[in-house]
Amino acid sequence: MSYARQMLDTYPRTLNVDAGLLAAAIDALSDCAQACNADNAADLGEHNVTEMVTCIRLCLDCADICTATAGVTSRQTEYHADVNRPLLEACVAICRSCGDECERHARMHEHCRVCAEACRRCEQACGELLAVVK
Amino acid sequence: MSYARQMLDTYPRTLNVDAGLLAAAIDALSDCAQACNADNAADLGEHNVTEMVTCIRLCLDCADICTATAGVTSRQTEYHADVNRPLLEACVAICRSCGDECERHARMHEHCRVCAEACRRCEQACGELLAVVK
Amino acid sequence: MSYARQMLDTYPRTLNVDAGLLAAAIDALSDCAQACNADNAADLGEHNVTEMVTCIRLCLDCADICTATAGVTSRQTEYHADVNRPLLEACVAICRSCGDECERHARMHEHCRVCAEACRRCEQACGELLAVVK
Amino acid sequence: MSYARQMLDTYPRTLNVDAGLLAAAIDALSDCAQACNADNAADLGEHNVTEMVTCIRLCLDCADICTATAGVTSRQTEYHADVNRPLLEACVAICRSCGDECERHARMHEHCRVCAEACRRCEQACGELLAVVK
Repeated sequence: MSYARQMLDTYPRTLNVDAGLLAAAIDALSDCAQACNADNAADLGEHNVTEMVTCIRLCLDCADICTATAGVTSRQTEYHADVNRPLLEACVAICRSCGDECERHARMHEHCRVCAEACRRCEQACGELLAVVK
Repeated sequence: MSYARQMLDTYPRTLNVDAGLLAAAIDALSDCAQACNADNAADLGEHNVTEMVTCIRLCLDCADICTATAGVTSRQTEYHADVNRPLLEACVAICRSCGDECERHARMHEHCRVCAEACRRCEQACGELLAVVK
Repeated sequence: MSYARQMLDTYPRTLNVDAGLLAAAIDALSDCAQACNADNAADLGEHNVTEMVTCIRLCLDCADICTATAGVTSRQTEYHADVNRPLLEACVAICRSCGDECERHARMHEHCRVCAEACRRCEQACGELLAVVK
Repeated sequence: MSYARQMLDTYPRTLNVDAGLLAAAIDALSDCAQACNADNAADLGEHNVTEMVTCIRLCLDCADICTATAGVTSRQTEYHADVNRPLLEACVAICRSCGDECERHARMHEHCRVCAEACRRCEQACGELLAVVK
């Protein structure tokens, strides 16, 4: 069981959302941030770095947004729709863009294939959370 | 002149926004993140820490979101409305909530008065950026 | 297999360290940052928050340092001992302090027990990495 | 007066260091993180991006370490030499490396000249703090 789930099981939350769904989102956000950091590092080591510039930028944006969303989502005991909704929307959007770009390089670079997978899973998990919160 | 403005003046951007407006937002985001980090540290040192819990949480959320938005906004040479708009919206919303909460403690705690000021300036600067980007 | 390990297997590194050891450190750093973020959030929700102030502060410091170390460690294709050694040392030290403090609250608060475990594992993994790098 | 200095003036600290020195370090760390984020973004937009790879990587490391050090330094009311000393040492080392690399590109790229300046100022401010803390 992930730390996120273990943590959520130990303290009361006012966010009326299934703990499994919430923990899945926090884990996916944390994994996606890590994958994006590793992928942009790997991109910077490729011979065709000029072709990887868009991928590097999107990975940096995606890591930044996922890190912030993981923090805010872990912290929430009160739910502020006007903050959480657009933040999750920004997260879904950057995971989609970054996942699409990584997928374009997936056959050439295995690290981009792995990163695309992390982005897809995060897009999915944040989308599911967005669907149940008001 | 701030580093943000000096930087923006040295490289081409596709984001068709006045450099002064963009630099003001990046500076305000960076200052607000710093003020929120310092304020939650100061809150933790107060005798009435129990009454400061909401303020601490909002400062942590605000620092996380402002840091991510500063990164994404600094990095942008391409503008993705589906990412940037909701991210700026989340930022405006958390700066407003955090600024309101800090203001409630402003007479008691000078550090909250300073943080409220940083939040208001950031809310304003991000709001102005949001108004001109599509 | 973790993303960190999959990533390390896909690109050349100049850091002449066993990939398993490096991936274990990156995973432990990322997990520890996540656990510390969740634990300080949980601490802030406890009735005896005044007694949790040191724990909250150490968790915030630990999350900050682990996040930076995870980034630098993921990114390294060149190894700079004058940066990496003290950074890993700072990380081992904060994980020890934070783990000790969390352990003091472990019987009262399950979330602190979980966080202490994450800190111990990270202290161990970074210590092992420190032992093999020059 | 910067937010860091205003904040430090409003709450008691156990770190027995001149507030001006501490505030100068926090401001320099925050500015350096911002400059490094902006500089790697600018590097990614240059035609000779292949020659900028080392600069991009060092800027990313420098931003990560400065951000963590700014957080820990802002937060401190208790001073832990075993954490703060190596963290400041890592910061001085990465600011020196990143400043050196940026300086190599300063005549070609104005954004690297600005970033080198921010790195030098941060190296200096953290070095001065390191000299007075035990």
